[in-house]
Amino acid sequence: MTAIDLQALKDGDRRALAKAITLVESSRAEHRDRAQEVLEQILPETGNSIRVGISGVPGVGKSTFIEAFGLYLIAQGKRVAVLAVDPSSPIAGGSILGDKTRMEYLSRRQEAFIRPSPASGALGGVAQKTRETMLLCEAAGYDVILVETVGVGQSEYQVAGMVDFFMVLMLPGAGDELQGIKKGILELADSLVINKADGDSALLAKQASRHYTSAMNLLRHTSFWTPRVMTCSALKNDNVDAVWGMIVDYYFQALQAGAFQNKRARQNRDWMRQLLNEMLLQQLTQNPRIKALIPRLEQDVEEGRITPFHAARQLIALL
Amino acid sequence: MTAIDLQALKDGDRRALAKAITLVESSRAEHRDRAQEVLEQILPETGNSIRVGISGVPGVGKSTFIEAFGLYLIAQGKRVAVLAVDPSSPIAGGSILGDKTRMEYLSRRQEAFIRPSPASGALGGVAQKTRETMLLCEAAGYDVILVETVGVGQSEYQVAGMVDFFMVLMLPGAGDELQGIKKGILELADSLVINKADGDSALLAKQASRHYTSAMNLLRHTSFWTPRVMTCSALKNDNVDAVWGMIVDYYFQALQAGAFQNKRARQNRDWMRQLLNEMLLQQLTQNPRIKALIPRLEQDVEEGRITPFHAARQLIALL
Repeated sequence: MTAIDLQALKDGDRRALAKAITLVESSRAEHRDRAQEVLEQILPETGNSIRVGISGVPGVGKSTFIEAFGLYLIAQGKRVAVLAVDPSSPIAGGSILGDKTRMEYLSRRQEAFIRPSPASGALGGVAQKTRETMLLCEAAGYDVILVETVGVGQSEYQVAGMVDFFMVLMLPGAGDELQGIKKGILELADSLVINKADGDSALLAKQASRHYTSAMNLLRHTSFWTPRVMTCSALKNDNVDAVWGMIVDYYFQALQAGAFQNKRARQNRDWMRQLLNEMLLQQLTQNPRIKALIPRLEQDVEEGRITPFHAARQLIALL
Repeated sequence: MTAIDLQALKDGDRRALAKAITLVESSRAEHRDRAQEVLEQILPETGNSIRVGISGVPGVGKSTFIEAFGLYLIAQGKRVAVLAVDPSSPIAGGSILGDKTRMEYLSRRQEAFIRPSPASGALGGVAQKTRETMLLCEAAGYDVILVETVGVGQSEYQVAGMVDFFMVLMLPGAGDELQGIKKGILELADSLVINKADGDSALLAKQASRHYTSAMNLLRHTSFWTPRVMTCSALKNDNVDAVWGMIVDYYFQALQAGAFQNKRARQNRDWMRQLLNEMLLQQLTQNPRIKALIPRLEQDVEEGRITPFHAARQLIALL
């Protein structure tokens, strides 16, 4: 891999950006070191975007929404990067074509940069690589970073932990079993956006909106922001502008409340602690005796033969 | 500290049990070792109780409920232990008198054992000591362990992570701001029990019940159990028996679904991993250079001067 042209990256050169992302996504040890050097060098140019997380079950219309939303932002003079966190994605870069097909108009625009989920990640998982890619996009001058999650496993928590604003797209039709909000999501969402609020579904969407609003109101909100429920139709390009209006509203309220920088600082600190935990665990399992012992001890603990404390101490004693 | 009489403990001798708990709660290193020995020895006699977590904001009537509930269980021929997790409790054993006063009738019964929150805990915090105390109570033949949490900080998560069934007591009067469910609690609760459903509040409690039921129904429940919303009046001893009926119902459904032992196995494994993380971090901070560096690096990370990855790696490199 040749050197990364940092000046070209900062000037918005797409090839330099793509190359830097490939470096960041590499799992080879020498690439990791160079990637960290690059990240340290661009760090002063980062942090100037609004980072928006977008989640929702398959079929909710995430691609259609992101395309409509991205094109709207470009019409407002913004440059938009679309990243994804998909821990289930098996092939490196394999979905680029897929992403370009599913966001056909957006992917043709010079003001948009679309990057699929990294296929794998060592420490910190794929989320770690998406976080680093986000920094590179910021250094390259993108104003809005949209981070998409497919909603598999812990990916919503990971994405909510790296963005300023986290929204969950919902389908119209409340009360339905299939419609149920994934556990814990009410806690993460700054907004529920009911998509496909068009045609026959417009009325259903309104009902769903009332339902979700009363569910949200049952929750205690200690922060400056009360999560909002909205409806839109990405297909008809209806109310997509209002979603952006809400995010801008959030942004200024958060700045005023001092919450914007606080949240980012807390996210960085939490991220550091998580990486530290993972690195410590990695150190532990570098010892083959310890590595072999863990599954046996876990089984003993699960079946109640030894206490968790005793098991943990046995492992530490071997360090 | 003199030796623990294990046979007396297993025979249900309250003094032997109290002494073992004092040993478990001690933070002195040699006591920790002896406590672990005791726990290993009684382990085969543990696991035979139903473990119930009870949470709720101050004023919801937790003490009154636990007293009425405990006396009902005793009337059914059960022996009941009441433990508490209160990370804010500053004085060791300081609230024993308080607990005896607030559960006056229950504390007088031979079939009940009431133990206040441990004042502090090193690894695993006060929750770790309550977990270990729970095992001692099981070895001493208690059939139902009630673990109370005051709802401060992470204590609900900790208690939900050590019990079979987690219930949250609520006040009548839905929609009220003060009434709002603490974030994340819907995710943890196997049941919401609206207390003080008596007199003028009976109607309000019914309304609250409808509200909470529809909020709960919005959540996706993948497990065999759909969380239930109930009303009761601990003061009037009304419907307290139905709360126990629900728990028994849960117990048999969980056994049948294979979920009962699975949940306990998972709790033990998670607990082991958490302790392992804490022990590793403790090893790290035993190095005074590393300990001194952590706050500085955290600040650098929070203020965006270095990446979290770089900071974590710097700490690991000093190991």
